[in-house]
Amino acid sequence: MSAVAVLGLGTMGRGMATNLVAAGHEVTVWNRTPGARPEVAGARAAASIAEAVRGQDVVLYCLSDDAAVRAVALGEDGVLAHVVAPTVVVDMSTISAALSDEEHAAYAERGIAMLDAPVFGSKGEAEAGGLWVVVGGDADTFARVRPVLEAVSESVHHMGPAGSGARMKLVGNLLVAAQLQSLGEGLTLARAAGLDLAKVLEVVAVTDFRTPIYDGVGAAVLADDYSPSFALRLMRKDVRLIGELAAQVGAPVPGAMVAAETLDAAMTAGLGDLNASALIKVLAGWAEVDLAQR
Amino acid sequence: MSAVAVLGLGTMGRGMATNLVAAGHEVTVWNRTPGARPEVAGARAAASIAEAVRGQDVVLYCLSDDAAVRAVALGEDGVLAHVVAPTVVVDMSTISAALSDEEHAAYAERGIAMLDAPVFGSKGEAEAGGLWVVVGGDADTFARVRPVLEAVSESVHHMGPAGSGARMKLVGNLLVAAQLQSLGEGLTLARAAGLDLAKVLEVVAVTDFRTPIYDGVGAAVLADDYSPSFALRLMRKDVRLIGELAAQVGAPVPGAMVAAETLDAAMTAGLGDLNASALIKVLAGWAEVDLAQR
Amino acid sequence: MSAVAVLGLGTMGRGMATNLVAAGHEVTVWNRTPGARPEVAGARAAASIAEAVRGQDVVLYCLSDDAAVRAVALGEDGVLAHVVAPTVVVDMSTISAALSDEEHAAYAERGIAMLDAPVFGSKGEAEAGGLWVVVGGDADTFARVRPVLEAVSESVHHMGPAGSGARMKLVGNLLVAAQLQSLGEGLTLARAAGLDLAKVLEVVAVTDFRTPIYDGVGAAVLADDYSPSFALRLMRKDVRLIGELAAQVGAPVPGAMVAAETLDAAMTAGLGDLNASALIKVLAGWAEVDLAQR
Amino acid sequence: MSAVAVLGLGTMGRGMATNLVAAGHEVTVWNRTPGARPEVAGARAAASIAEAVRGQDVVLYCLSDDAAVRAVALGEDGVLAHVVAPTVVVDMSTISAALSDEEHAAYAERGIAMLDAPVFGSKGEAEAGGLWVVVGGDADTFARVRPVLEAVSESVHHMGPAGSGARMKLVGNLLVAAQLQSLGEGLTLARAAGLDLAKVLEVVAVTDFRTPIYDGVGAAVLADDYSPSFALRLMRKDVRLIGELAAQVGAPVPGAMVAAETLDAAMTAGLGDLNASALIKVLAGWAEVDLAQR
Repeated sequence: MSAVAVLGLGTMGRGMATNLVAAGHEVTVWNRTPGARPEVAGARAAASIAEAVRGQDVVLYCLSDDAAVRAVALGEDGVLAHVVAPTVVVDMSTISAALSDEEHAAYAERGIAMLDAPVFGSKGEAEAGGLWVVVGGDADTFARVRPVLEAVSESVHHMGPAGSGARMKLVGNLLVAAQLQSLGEGLTLARAAGLDLAKVLEVVAVTDFRTPIYDGVGAAVLADDYSPSFALRLMRKDVRLIGELAAQVGAPVPGAMVAAETLDAAMTAGLGDLNASALIKVLAGWAEVDLAQR
Repeated sequence: MSAVAVLGLGTMGRGMATNLVAAGHEVTVWNRTPGARPEVAGARAAASIAEAVRGQDVVLYCLSDDAAVRAVALGEDGVLAHVVAPTVVVDMSTISAALSDEEHAAYAERGIAMLDAPVFGSKGEAEAGGLWVVVGGDADTFARVRPVLEAVSESVHHMGPAGSGARMKLVGNLLVAAQLQSLGEGLTLARAAGLDLAKVLEVVAVTDFRTPIYDGVGAAVLADDYSPSFALRLMRKDVRLIGELAAQVGAPVPGAMVAAETLDAAMTAGLGDLNASALIKVLAGWAEVDLAQR
Repeated sequence: MSAVAVLGLGTMGRGMATNLVAAGHEVTVWNRTPGARPEVAGARAAASIAEAVRGQDVVLYCLSDDAAVRAVALGEDGVLAHVVAPTVVVDMSTISAALSDEEHAAYAERGIAMLDAPVFGSKGEAEAGGLWVVVGGDADTFARVRPVLEAVSESVHHMGPAGSGARMKLVGNLLVAAQLQSLGEGLTLARAAGLDLAKVLEVVAVTDFRTPIYDGVGAAVLADDYSPSFALRLMRKDVRLIGELAAQVGAPVPGAMVAAETLDAAMTAGLGDLNASALIKVLAGWAEVDLAQR
Repeated sequence: MSAVAVLGLGTMGRGMATNLVAAGHEVTVWNRTPGARPEVAGARAAASIAEAVRGQDVVLYCLSDDAAVRAVALGEDGVLAHVVAPTVVVDMSTISAALSDEEHAAYAERGIAMLDAPVFGSKGEAEAGGLWVVVGGDADTFARVRPVLEAVSESVHHMGPAGSGARMKLVGNLLVAAQLQSLGEGLTLARAAGLDLAKVLEVVAVTDFRTPIYDGVGAAVLADDYSPSFALRLMRKDVRLIGELAAQVGAPVPGAMVAAETLDAAMTAGLGDLNASALIKVLAGWAEVDLAQR
């Protein structure tokens, strides 16, 4: 068992901390706004990052965006300023490939081992310890941290050297964005063409283009349920990061750019705090059809 | 058991006829170019459409495009000219919603019952009798023809009135096109960003955005295998039909239009006879990366 | 001088009628909602289409969409029901190529000569008699009607046989939509990148990519002026018609589809009655920048 | 009159040097591959960058891409290594906003004044001294260098602080790319719909969406002339830079991404050394129409 600090108690961090406690790890938590929500049962609460990271085997954080990682990890009085070897740092946030590389370089310069280890899955999977973790970094560090990652996940995948996890996450989210966009186009076209959407989903569910996303999100759309498990504003941010990485490496992602446009429209329509699937609502609105079946 | 005529012995028709024979139906086949390929064992070969359709319970055809259906079904000496009630006509081709409606009207005027019943699945599913059939037409006709459709398929879905099958097929192919396009963008981005594609597919296969298409096509792409089970030129035709239907009913399908553009580029690159997944080759070529892992 | 009936007194019809009177033609007007607005000075008002078309040399209409043309031209008690040779019908509306063809066929069957003659230009040009007319139909009919068309326009262009005018109009509006979309992307990128938009427009105005649209719309955007001369909802309709024609003839119009998406977003944002240039507002909103310079 | 070094004698550099000589400046030229083409009459040829930049009032270069600027300006034995105040450096290349910023920082650290001053216009304008220059940097430096820039251009525009010229260039090229793409879509749609393209261009030329590009490129397309004045591969590079800048500042450029896709397809079709307008050839090929009128 390891001593683990979890920084940030948003949807993801809270679920992870709970599962780490359940797995028998010695867990310390720190949150930017202490007391805002009840602390994690079985975990010690630290008053500062400095206090949280001291003497840990592993320090991990799963924060919402580049700005949060810059503040918590690289900022004044952040992790980098206080962490000491042999503590290992694990960044589980979905951030730009560029910032992941910058973080690796900054920790390496200070002699600290680091992994980029973002996760697939959202609220439900975080709470159930059923995330999928994709890891970049050297094999030895990965081997040391693996049991900790396994405590929060269904499977853990070592993708390659530093930055590979961050890049894999963006590739995966490109696929997720494409599935949401295509489901939205498909359901909207089906409804506008007069089909019964329940039957449409029934067919989709048995073909070789079925996906858990089509099944789960499809059912929610018919129930008019866009309650957030993965907020649309985060998906929008991720598609931006995909565009940035694609521009850097010269890869064409026109489909992802189409999803970006729909997400942008959803943001300006005030849907940013709903589930990412609310982009489907936007597409339906453009065709002046209603996808809910009551 | 029924007396069934199968018109057209392409990839789909041949597989269907074989499975109808195996299920004990009395099968007559007709092909535009007789003798081009060996006939179907256990089936009687007719020399003309007139001869083929005479006295059948069901006449079915699964042809490649609108032009072929116009010729075989509505053309001079075609099905419409010779078929007599109570024979039921089943069009299993993927064609425009407009032509499907036109066919229904033409047969109805002659007092002939008709179903539009296109299928999902390609070469492998046709041979194995594992297609998924989506049917439009009235419930009584559907009930009569159902056993015949079940002989060629894994499941049969009655979508609603005349034309519902044709429309569902286009909705489904929108999803297929989106999955091929997104897999192509994802693998290209992954490779350009330095990831190991076998590991990428391994991760994708366990997440909630996994699909049989990502698994199957992904593995084939890594093996540089684009041998056709569903030809790219047919997928391109289908995306055109999707665009046409979408324009008619006022549904936005920008993602499908992106796939259309890639398919167009693949056509001019001379890849039309390869598998539809060859659009992935085009995307990779744009980024100047090679996705094959040997 | 000719006897001319003008059906429909919207922005375009009213301007045309006024200029026809000014040119010395004998003008009769008819409007669906009589009395809604003051009639056209110097023109006789008819109480019905039947009365309006009787004994005219030319009957012309410039209506807002396919539905309006179906009602006024082909509907019960519409033009087709009452017009008698040698009166010539001129449809100046922007409608689908398909409806234009249908209209030509319907009038031809009744022995009535018809031209499709949509116009470029909007409110200002209609009022000033400065429209650009693009005409489809036979040369003799064109020659007869030409003086009437010249009275409302800066130039008149005979494009070819029946339907050529309608098609040219859609091609032109594809270019207009692309210029609005690109101006929106350019100004938004410029502002987000910190440039002074007045200087940007100054540069654009001297290069070889300058256009009157960039100049005029650009200045209006900086003045935050989206008062309608050509309503966004009409532009959206036109882009739909472009998509439909493109699907029919197999032409790729991915850029037009991008504009369609932005226009759809503008519609759901409630901007349909503003000028078509309000799609630029939508693009700016997506980037969270404000283009107005006060 | 000033002492000016021109580094790089490609299409742009050669034209600029010639016009600087003609304007009475004392010109030194340097080329990476000396002797490859005859030197510029009236200019002194230097054997190295070190020799070329020594004692000049102004050192300018207009190179093909980021890599070339890195080599010539920032590389070992490049401009940065040898230039001495008060010589002013002017980078007229079209490069990424990021590299422009990096260059400014590098020169500033060495106390060298620098301007980013890319140009609109291509071969013809460079030879005729009719370029349009957009400049970023401080006003004093601009004032000193202005006469030199005026010698090669029709107009010179001070856009704002360091980097403003580089950014304006990308904004402008977004508009150029959109015009090429829309002209290609428009002409292809027109031809596929049966219109006479000469008449189409005639109409376009009189409307308020006319542009010198539609006129000039349109005529060349009808003459099947794609001889390069601005190579397609450079346009493709520029659209990549636009995508990168847009991703950084969070601006949506879906239309530019569509043009990127067409340019990518043109590259893989082997058209990279033709004029950028060859993307129109690609669009026409997708619709299987030929735009040349012989």
